[in-house]
Amino acid sequence: MTSATPAVRPRFEDKLRAIVGEAGLVTAGDEREPYEIDWLRKWRGRGSVVVRPGTTEEVAQVMRLCNEARIPVVPQGGNTGMSGGATPDDSGAQVILSTTRLRAVREVDPLNNTITVEAGVPLARVQEEADGVNRFFPLSLGSEGSCTIGGNLATNAGGIAVLKYGNTRDLALGLEVVLPDGRIWRGLRGLRKDNTGYDLRDLFIGSEGTLGIITAAVLKLFPKPAARATAWVGCAGLEQLVRLLARVRDACGDRLVAFEMLTGPSLRLILDQVADVRNPLEGPHAYHALIEVADTRDEGLAALLERSLAQAVGDGLIDDAAIASSLSHRLSFWKIREGISQAQVRAGKAVKHDIALPVSVLPRFVEAAETAVRGVMPHAHIVNFGHLGDGNLHFNVLLPKNASAGKVAEANALLNRVVHDLVVENGGSISAEHGIGQLRRDELRHYKSAVEFDLMMTLKQAIDRNQIMNPGKLI
Amino acid sequence: MTSATPAVRPRFEDKLRAIVGEAGLVTAGDEREPYEIDWLRKWRGRGSVVVRPGTTEEVAQVMRLCNEARIPVVPQGGNTGMSGGATPDDSGAQVILSTTRLRAVREVDPLNNTITVEAGVPLARVQEEADGVNRFFPLSLGSEGSCTIGGNLATNAGGIAVLKYGNTRDLALGLEVVLPDGRIWRGLRGLRKDNTGYDLRDLFIGSEGTLGIITAAVLKLFPKPAARATAWVGCAGLEQLVRLLARVRDACGDRLVAFEMLTGPSLRLILDQVADVRNPLEGPHAYHALIEVADTRDEGLAALLERSLAQAVGDGLIDDAAIASSLSHRLSFWKIREGISQAQVRAGKAVKHDIALPVSVLPRFVEAAETAVRGVMPHAHIVNFGHLGDGNLHFNVLLPKNASAGKVAEANALLNRVVHDLVVENGGSISAEHGIGQLRRDELRHYKSAVEFDLMMTLKQAIDRNQIMNPGKLI
Repeated sequence: MTSATPAVRPRFEDKLRAIVGEAGLVTAGDEREPYEIDWLRKWRGRGSVVVRPGTTEEVAQVMRLCNEARIPVVPQGGNTGMSGGATPDDSGAQVILSTTRLRAVREVDPLNNTITVEAGVPLARVQEEADGVNRFFPLSLGSEGSCTIGGNLATNAGGIAVLKYGNTRDLALGLEVVLPDGRIWRGLRGLRKDNTGYDLRDLFIGSEGTLGIITAAVLKLFPKPAARATAWVGCAGLEQLVRLLARVRDACGDRLVAFEMLTGPSLRLILDQVADVRNPLEGPHAYHALIEVADTRDEGLAALLERSLAQAVGDGLIDDAAIASSLSHRLSFWKIREGISQAQVRAGKAVKHDIALPVSVLPRFVEAAETAVRGVMPHAHIVNFGHLGDGNLHFNVLLPKNASAGKVAEANALLNRVVHDLVVENGGSISAEHGIGQLRRDELRHYKSAVEFDLMMTLKQAIDRNQIMNPGKLI
Repeated sequence: MTSATPAVRPRFEDKLRAIVGEAGLVTAGDEREPYEIDWLRKWRGRGSVVVRPGTTEEVAQVMRLCNEARIPVVPQGGNTGMSGGATPDDSGAQVILSTTRLRAVREVDPLNNTITVEAGVPLARVQEEADGVNRFFPLSLGSEGSCTIGGNLATNAGGIAVLKYGNTRDLALGLEVVLPDGRIWRGLRGLRKDNTGYDLRDLFIGSEGTLGIITAAVLKLFPKPAARATAWVGCAGLEQLVRLLARVRDACGDRLVAFEMLTGPSLRLILDQVADVRNPLEGPHAYHALIEVADTRDEGLAALLERSLAQAVGDGLIDDAAIASSLSHRLSFWKIREGISQAQVRAGKAVKHDIALPVSVLPRFVEAAETAVRGVMPHAHIVNFGHLGDGNLHFNVLLPKNASAGKVAEANALLNRVVHDLVVENGGSISAEHGIGQLRRDELRHYKSAVEFDLMMTLKQAIDRNQIMNPGKLI
């Protein structure tokens, strides 16, 4: 990459500076570092320069320049991804294009139930803007204070509201995208129906910056829930939880917004590692669920959930259930569920899986996966939890705190193969919500059918002809 | 197209017969005719042969054969489209590939809330299968008895449940697709989350048979509504209806499933032309809405809607409202709404528009469009109705019964330009739910930005290298 050699780079930087100004350029090594390392501190790279355009036009000019010079570009939002999709390689040749200065809320339209925001707007800001006009933007993630809408769209982020509202993909109506050659696709349509050709929007959503740069989006807003009721449930097995999910949905319909699962060992780990949490139920249970219903009316919502759970206890389907009696009680349930990330970090290293399966298949899959994992690692500490309502499990295996990097890599390779083989055999996904990035790129290549991989490669080559968009990620 | 010359065709037919058998081939001219003319009798073509494969493998073999011989293929489902997308041209060179023998329901999974069906399964059958396991498949169209799921997906059909459940696109989780070269993409995943690469599913959905042939799909099922409440409303203007929509949604949240609009002249036309319908309200109103709410619980649903409407009457937002007091009363409201198609046919010819705009823009758009239409056609009989909740209007202009074909074509060209110019100026779509097909292909080319059209063409050329898929449609 001759453009990255010391002799040439300064001239290229000058051209970038002419586009974005001094405020839009980060060249010093120590100032670049936050952009070169991911927040998990798992991936570290070295970029040639960080460019932070302030407008879509500037993004377009930067891309035109990079495309002409064949300089690879790594788009980056809030840099909160889980799969290394926004970290440059260590060549020092890649330009990091940060969207964080694209921060305008362009329009809020409560009558159309839409909001139009630029890519760098943090997710929490979108939630607040919606709230300000008595509407609800349902996307919700642990990182919502710092992740950006552009990153959410590029990775099709999931989170805790997918059961009712879908993934980020389902929340977008229109996009504005700068293509690899610097042209701008102006697709910011706020329409519920538009059958005028191929669905370009969904091609860019979830493409992890490998096809273009999303610079703005029209997002859907929803009626604001006025009431929530939340329960904690304990039962003997996953089969029972899957049946409970169907029952609660029959009883509550669209009111069901969350059905999160924690195994007994997952709860134990949280209780051991996280301060100020306690088991909402007496005694141990093999499986737990956090169930939440919400409604725009608050008439009898908690009673509806309570009746449904009381019946399930009466029928022997589940062992015990507690309904949150106050807001703080409710938040204490969520604190347990959200404590799992911290608990795992404190407990040591882990081999992580972010998988999805048909909900009906989960019980037999988990049984088979636990058996298979113990077949290759007899005393494996399995920490299994996730968004049961979406069929999405984080089926993780804790490793000893002092495990060497080599041992961790070995365990990763071994367990990924065991677990992912079973996932694919059962019609599942090896990356439910965290995307491919660098983390699962080899796995993707291993598991995708030749036809599907070839179709993806065909699209990549057709749209990013010079192969400058986020090389080394996804595909 | 040498392969279509009389000398060559018989050999080609023999090859097709070897794949699909005698039952899968329709060669005689009179037997071909139902496949060569659309149900509106608006488009008529001539195919070389109709092939009706019975399995996905057969579809694949047919496509391989046609691709090698460079013979164009026109995919066809129930042949109920509105835009001529499934009718061959008149060259006699195109093979019509009917999916109507792909009729298997491959799997119904109530715990996963999915159903897996082949492309030729009629929509009504999917609704019935869902009902049989106490679930609900919400897609609903006038042609549901004969249209096929494959056609619904290929055209991203809309209908009367989009407000709550989205278009067909939003109801699909996975697809099986035969590519133009005969390879099979097996993407029948029943997953709520899957972030493993580019969204191929949504590329094929809505592509109107120009990129491949959808042979099967995994569709979402929903909780079955147990109660419905339906109202008929009259008011003075569209502005009021748009504000009422926001109010009803605030009050009823996700319970709102339909918000259909008819202008005074549209209702008048129906009352004049359709038997056994009568105005649910006293006196004339400039605008009417049919509003329906549904819930999985039936506690106080009608009262909820009634309170909301009573308040709107009290506030002077609307003039009058009637709540259906029985199932037959409710069906009588829907009979009015559904009578508009028949009323238009009986009244004569019409220049039709199938447009969508942001809901908030509708009042000023309609005012501008009516003014513009009367500017070029002072006594135009405007029949405006549609799915207000989706921002989707059928903004039609009736022509005299005895208008000549030339006059109709002239009026079409004139009014399309006037109306579509305003649609595009206001950020709208010139084809909300009926697709492009042959009908709006020139309009698409006229209005799409160069960047968007070029992106679409890039995709078309990358996936259908020999340009054999449904030539002359969409793009």
